[in-house]
Amino acid sequence: MAQIMGKQSIKFDTRVGILNSASIVSKKEGEGPLGELFDVICEDPIFGCESWEEAESTLQKEAVTLVLGKARLEKENIRYLFAGDLLGQTIASSFGLLDFNIPLFGVYGACSTCGEALSLGAMAIAGGFADHVVAVTSSHFASAEKQFRFPLEYGNQRPLSASWTVTGSGAFVLSKEYSDIQITGITPGKIVDYGVKDSLNMGACMAPAATDTIFQSLSDFDYLPDEYDKIITGDLGYVGQEILIKLLKEKGYDISKQHMDCGIEIFDQDNQDTHAGGSGCGCSAVTLSAYILKQLQNKMWKKVLFVPTGALLSTISYNEGKSVPGIAHAVIIENITM
Amino acid sequence: MAQIMGKQSIKFDTRVGILNSASIVSKKEGEGPLGELFDVICEDPIFGCESWEEAESTLQKEAVTLVLGKARLEKENIRYLFAGDLLGQTIASSFGLLDFNIPLFGVYGACSTCGEALSLGAMAIAGGFADHVVAVTSSHFASAEKQFRFPLEYGNQRPLSASWTVTGSGAFVLSKEYSDIQITGITPGKIVDYGVKDSLNMGACMAPAATDTIFQSLSDFDYLPDEYDKIITGDLGYVGQEILIKLLKEKGYDISKQHMDCGIEIFDQDNQDTHAGGSGCGCSAVTLSAYILKQLQNKMWKKVLFVPTGALLSTISYNEGKSVPGIAHAVIIENITM
Repeated sequence: MAQIMGKQSIKFDTRVGILNSASIVSKKEGEGPLGELFDVICEDPIFGCESWEEAESTLQKEAVTLVLGKARLEKENIRYLFAGDLLGQTIASSFGLLDFNIPLFGVYGACSTCGEALSLGAMAIAGGFADHVVAVTSSHFASAEKQFRFPLEYGNQRPLSASWTVTGSGAFVLSKEYSDIQITGITPGKIVDYGVKDSLNMGACMAPAATDTIFQSLSDFDYLPDEYDKIITGDLGYVGQEILIKLLKEKGYDISKQHMDCGIEIFDQDNQDTHAGGSGCGCSAVTLSAYILKQLQNKMWKKVLFVPTGALLSTISYNEGKSVPGIAHAVIIENITM
Repeated sequence: MAQIMGKQSIKFDTRVGILNSASIVSKKEGEGPLGELFDVICEDPIFGCESWEEAESTLQKEAVTLVLGKARLEKENIRYLFAGDLLGQTIASSFGLLDFNIPLFGVYGACSTCGEALSLGAMAIAGGFADHVVAVTSSHFASAEKQFRFPLEYGNQRPLSASWTVTGSGAFVLSKEYSDIQITGITPGKIVDYGVKDSLNMGACMAPAATDTIFQSLSDFDYLPDEYDKIITGDLGYVGQEILIKLLKEKGYDISKQHMDCGIEIFDQDNQDTHAGGSGCGCSAVTLSAYILKQLQNKMWKKVLFVPTGALLSTISYNEGKSVPGIAHAVIIENITM
């Protein structure tokens, strides 16, 4: 079933297939470098809804509907949902997933939530607790700005270290059924706090957590970075990427050749005015579905370490002068036919 | 390892022991009917901290420290934490658990979070993914009022249907080691929305979800209510209890003899001015630790169905005129020596 590896990792000996996935984004993501790869691009960022929160709920609903269709499954075939988002009390998930009538495990790990949902979903499959589960996460630029920063109408200036929250949702069917693409291990992450307090420089807040999880994963499995075609963080952006590579070098691993960041891939820094890169629970999720899994399916890559990264803050913690700790959850995904 | 039961339940064939537990509360809870049973009663509701949020973080930190001590375990022995709270972006957990340096799965199910954390923790043990995990949840009256309702200084009047958020945290060590008290099954719950919009009547919002989960659990395991000494909801309070018993009667199960509600047990309605009863992620957690598990250990009860109940709302969803859906997660706990 599973082997406990080192300090904090798990190797799955039972099959955990990624049976299918779906991605839905809005206009800006559609105009970015990955634009052609997404399943659905909705031009209207509010998706015909009355609020940004409802729009984000719609994203999750559409992503799950889409992935069930692609996997030719009914909602009755899905035993559990693992879902989360960035909003207070994760209301995007609560209202978006209501109609599916599927038991729900709500999860929260800020922008690392996609990694957390995939990890718990994989444990549910590998443990024999379910035949099929769905992991789904979302973020929305406007609901996130409203939640964490300033009302859009205020038109505040963004420093170059700030990231741009991706409007999108990615959903994944995990299954005990055969799939070429499988989750073969996980390294759940710890909270890591270097005391950075700048909520407009989340790359710097999250890089130490990504460092910690990647270091521990390589060490638990006794792998060198070369084991992977890519080591892919969620949304460190340009600022965080530099810190990550430097910190890991100090710990003895050079991942500069393998490293890729979903936040860097999803937008065109020069032409889209997105500064440090994309971010949000949706960023890593839609990049995994639209790009990373396709690269694995097309045998461009054999094995990747997928490491969504989260910044653990709220407006209350920020306004009370607290630091912004980070967390990162690593998932090993491979094409087992290669 | 595990059997899939009916539509949404799991029966654990592998041992999931509740090795130990700890509870910490504040003055008001200490003066209530369960007062003598809590491990720690802190007279100062702000626990010497500078904010209510920090106070709630301290609750979680103390609860985990306490349970590790009682179980004679070091933090290095705990492979994963499953933790959550009611605050936006679950900051009570993020800041309270930072120093333990244990990989964290953040969970959110409103006041049902204790049931969700225990369920996922039990799956981690039964699946062979860990030897010991800790499930911990908290709530704090003042941080919850600030988050969901009005500043305390405003001194708003509370309708009789309103509940009083419990200040407290309960932590549980789940283990593959032997314990008389074991988790033998779970029924993760669905989101259920009857369209109730009154955030000051959460009992009515959550009762349909509790009904759904209890009905499904009894039906999945093919049990009658008599199977259990007690069927225990989290924080339905007096208003929700009446609705639950009525709804389940309509579905063919009379649980009026077995039903107990943590929110009703924890305060003295006549003398503590707590109206409909206690609530919060801490309510069911400290009642489980201080009272329910002791009744099982003392062989007063053999088997209980523990069903924490959550109301899925945020101030944003409430202010945007949305309803308050509910969710409830059921955990079967028994003394296997009886």
